[in-house]
Amino acid sequence: MPRTPEPSLPPALDPALLPALREGHPLIQCLTNVVTVNLVANAVLAIGGTPAMVDTPGEAGIFAGVASATLVNVGTIGAEQQRGMLEATDAAREAGTPWVLDPVAVGTLPVRTKLAQDLLERRPTVIRGNASEIRALAGDGGGGRGVDAADEVDAVAEVAADLARRSGAVVAVSGSVDLVTDGNRAVRVHAGHPLLTRITGAGCALGGVLAAFLATGQDPLAATVTAHAAYGVAAERAAADAAGPGSFAVGLLDALAAVQPADLAREGLTA
Amino acid sequence: MPRTPEPSLPPALDPALLPALREGHPLIQCLTNVVTVNLVANAVLAIGGTPAMVDTPGEAGIFAGVASATLVNVGTIGAEQQRGMLEATDAAREAGTPWVLDPVAVGTLPVRTKLAQDLLERRPTVIRGNASEIRALAGDGGGGRGVDAADEVDAVAEVAADLARRSGAVVAVSGSVDLVTDGNRAVRVHAGHPLLTRITGAGCALGGVLAAFLATGQDPLAATVTAHAAYGVAAERAAADAAGPGSFAVGLLDALAAVQPADLAREGLTA
Amino acid sequence: MPRTPEPSLPPALDPALLPALREGHPLIQCLTNVVTVNLVANAVLAIGGTPAMVDTPGEAGIFAGVASATLVNVGTIGAEQQRGMLEATDAAREAGTPWVLDPVAVGTLPVRTKLAQDLLERRPTVIRGNASEIRALAGDGGGGRGVDAADEVDAVAEVAADLARRSGAVVAVSGSVDLVTDGNRAVRVHAGHPLLTRITGAGCALGGVLAAFLATGQDPLAATVTAHAAYGVAAERAAADAAGPGSFAVGLLDALAAVQPADLAREGLTA
Repeated sequence: MPRTPEPSLPPALDPALLPALREGHPLIQCLTNVVTVNLVANAVLAIGGTPAMVDTPGEAGIFAGVASATLVNVGTIGAEQQRGMLEATDAAREAGTPWVLDPVAVGTLPVRTKLAQDLLERRPTVIRGNASEIRALAGDGGGGRGVDAADEVDAVAEVAADLARRSGAVVAVSGSVDLVTDGNRAVRVHAGHPLLTRITGAGCALGGVLAAFLATGQDPLAATVTAHAAYGVAAERAAADAAGPGSFAVGLLDALAAVQPADLAREGLTA
Repeated sequence: MPRTPEPSLPPALDPALLPALREGHPLIQCLTNVVTVNLVANAVLAIGGTPAMVDTPGEAGIFAGVASATLVNVGTIGAEQQRGMLEATDAAREAGTPWVLDPVAVGTLPVRTKLAQDLLERRPTVIRGNASEIRALAGDGGGGRGVDAADEVDAVAEVAADLARRSGAVVAVSGSVDLVTDGNRAVRVHAGHPLLTRITGAGCALGGVLAAFLATGQDPLAATVTAHAAYGVAAERAAADAAGPGSFAVGLLDALAAVQPADLAREGLTA
Repeated sequence: MPRTPEPSLPPALDPALLPALREGHPLIQCLTNVVTVNLVANAVLAIGGTPAMVDTPGEAGIFAGVASATLVNVGTIGAEQQRGMLEATDAAREAGTPWVLDPVAVGTLPVRTKLAQDLLERRPTVIRGNASEIRALAGDGGGGRGVDAADEVDAVAEVAADLARRSGAVVAVSGSVDLVTDGNRAVRVHAGHPLLTRITGAGCALGGVLAAFLATGQDPLAATVTAHAAYGVAAERAAADAAGPGSFAVGLLDALAAVQPADLAREGLTA
């Protein structure tokens, strides 16, 4: 088993996933934080999914069994929400429902860090976070972090690949360039815009969009790469018309609804 | 007692409720889900009410006694929220405060379905949902569902009228055409826009607007029909200027604040 | 000790706090209500801070020790949130982290009124509310309220100054004119726009912006006055381009991100 991703493997972009997603309007269960839940739901709707925020214990597991994909984001975590997340991911694993783990702010905060480890044992299909979160989830406490996000992605590439191999998940690291790896292959997505860092929930919404692409039932690496490409292209278009972060967030939803398969160019990807 | 609504009865639109609502700035208590609570509050403000999201046990009942109307939406339901909803509706019933039940996703999910039945016993003034939710709340498990929303409304008309007669509530069914019935009279509101289905919380926000119209203290059927007409007209205007779902949601609030009595034409109604 | 603010003291505006805030991107912990939490986070980001909504017991205290400022807003208060707020403010006091108390709807509602008193004992750096909330927190139950907000500020000025002296906090009263007092000096900020009363969370978002200015570590009175001036100027600019409350809320975020030190004119202040 190679210890580093092989640059010779081709990018995994699959623009056909976008019309497949939009035809099916798949049910996307989102267990997510109260800060950005509205943006997540609207992003899922905009890209073509049908979001449902069913997180109550006693319902979350039932729903994970009928949803086409589940998102678990640990941004805010009451006791009931934690139980709902464990219940949903147990059921998702049982039912074979693909699911995304977004380990928001995992690291030194103990409640979410313990929860994220418990969730990791339930074998997420994709793990999505920034370099610091991926490093923390992987148990890699130290190491210098690059000054800019491109450095961050390079600095965390090996840790991400190792986490992917150990967990069986595709791992996606968000930065000015995004890195997606299944531990064997790695793809860098050169899309997006700095305004994504000036609104709350840009990463959370990407998690929802990613779950929607996973709901197509296709290869998780291709779904993850394509989700990042679609999201990044939409962000670029929204930024072109934005007067600031408020109008950018609005335009991002408009652009997610408008993005087309032809917009997802392979040029934006590197191995 | 007639088993079917009588088409000969006149539509119940009352445009004068809009200035009455705006003069009074009535206090609207909203116990609603975390996904769309911000949109609900802003929609209530835009139409002219004063929203207050007081849902804590120990406060919810007190507040229901002083509010002019209460909205209960079971979209997300923690244990405390459930207690707050029961406390508020007990107090609303005691005080004669009109209140709206929005049975979000009631059907196969057991926690909310039980809760909605408990709430139904507290005699809501209006019940508002889509065809599937109204059917589930009425205990009508089977039956073919129409392919498009107009079919849905026709298919559920009898069930809705029966639920209205049994519960004493006005029942409103949202679809591409909305149906409002008190079990005796039925009015169809031909307003709205498909973009309402592309944002999260369009139904929830309508529930808040509906509560604001009920706060005028006028006939619940007229208040419900007029609320639907105002909301539908605002949606049409917002859609005309929207570049997608993001800008539509923003424009919907602008349009709700701008809608005038003269905009609420009787032409949009049929028996 | 003077019983009334001294009009001869100079205004405390310090435009240099704005670039200081933006250079540092300080971490702002927000324990706030579910209704407007998204707007609060986006407002903090727009003005230049880094918001983090860490409110879970077991994490809230840890985070208050590393954040540069903490906001506590009692708009919605589950049992866990209440514990998180007490834990965070205990830790903030211990660590010397400046913190803002926003006593939303304190008065007749018993749970939040008790909580706000418990929080008051933990010595907030700034208390921010409308005239009615400040009056209630101060234990001043009666007294005529002015019809318009300018009257309100005048009517509550003495109560606010007394609360400031007793609590050691700077007290800020929001109205058509804002009043900021430390019990000795008082400054009135003539900025803002009536559309701020037509969206939900305008006061909550001001609380977040205020916490961000406090995070500069400078004089709390100057930070509070400057935050109100920046927010008011941004509101005026957003209102100039708004078609209604929906577009105003979007434009407010754009304007907060665009506001510059030179925009904060001393002309808008009076003693």
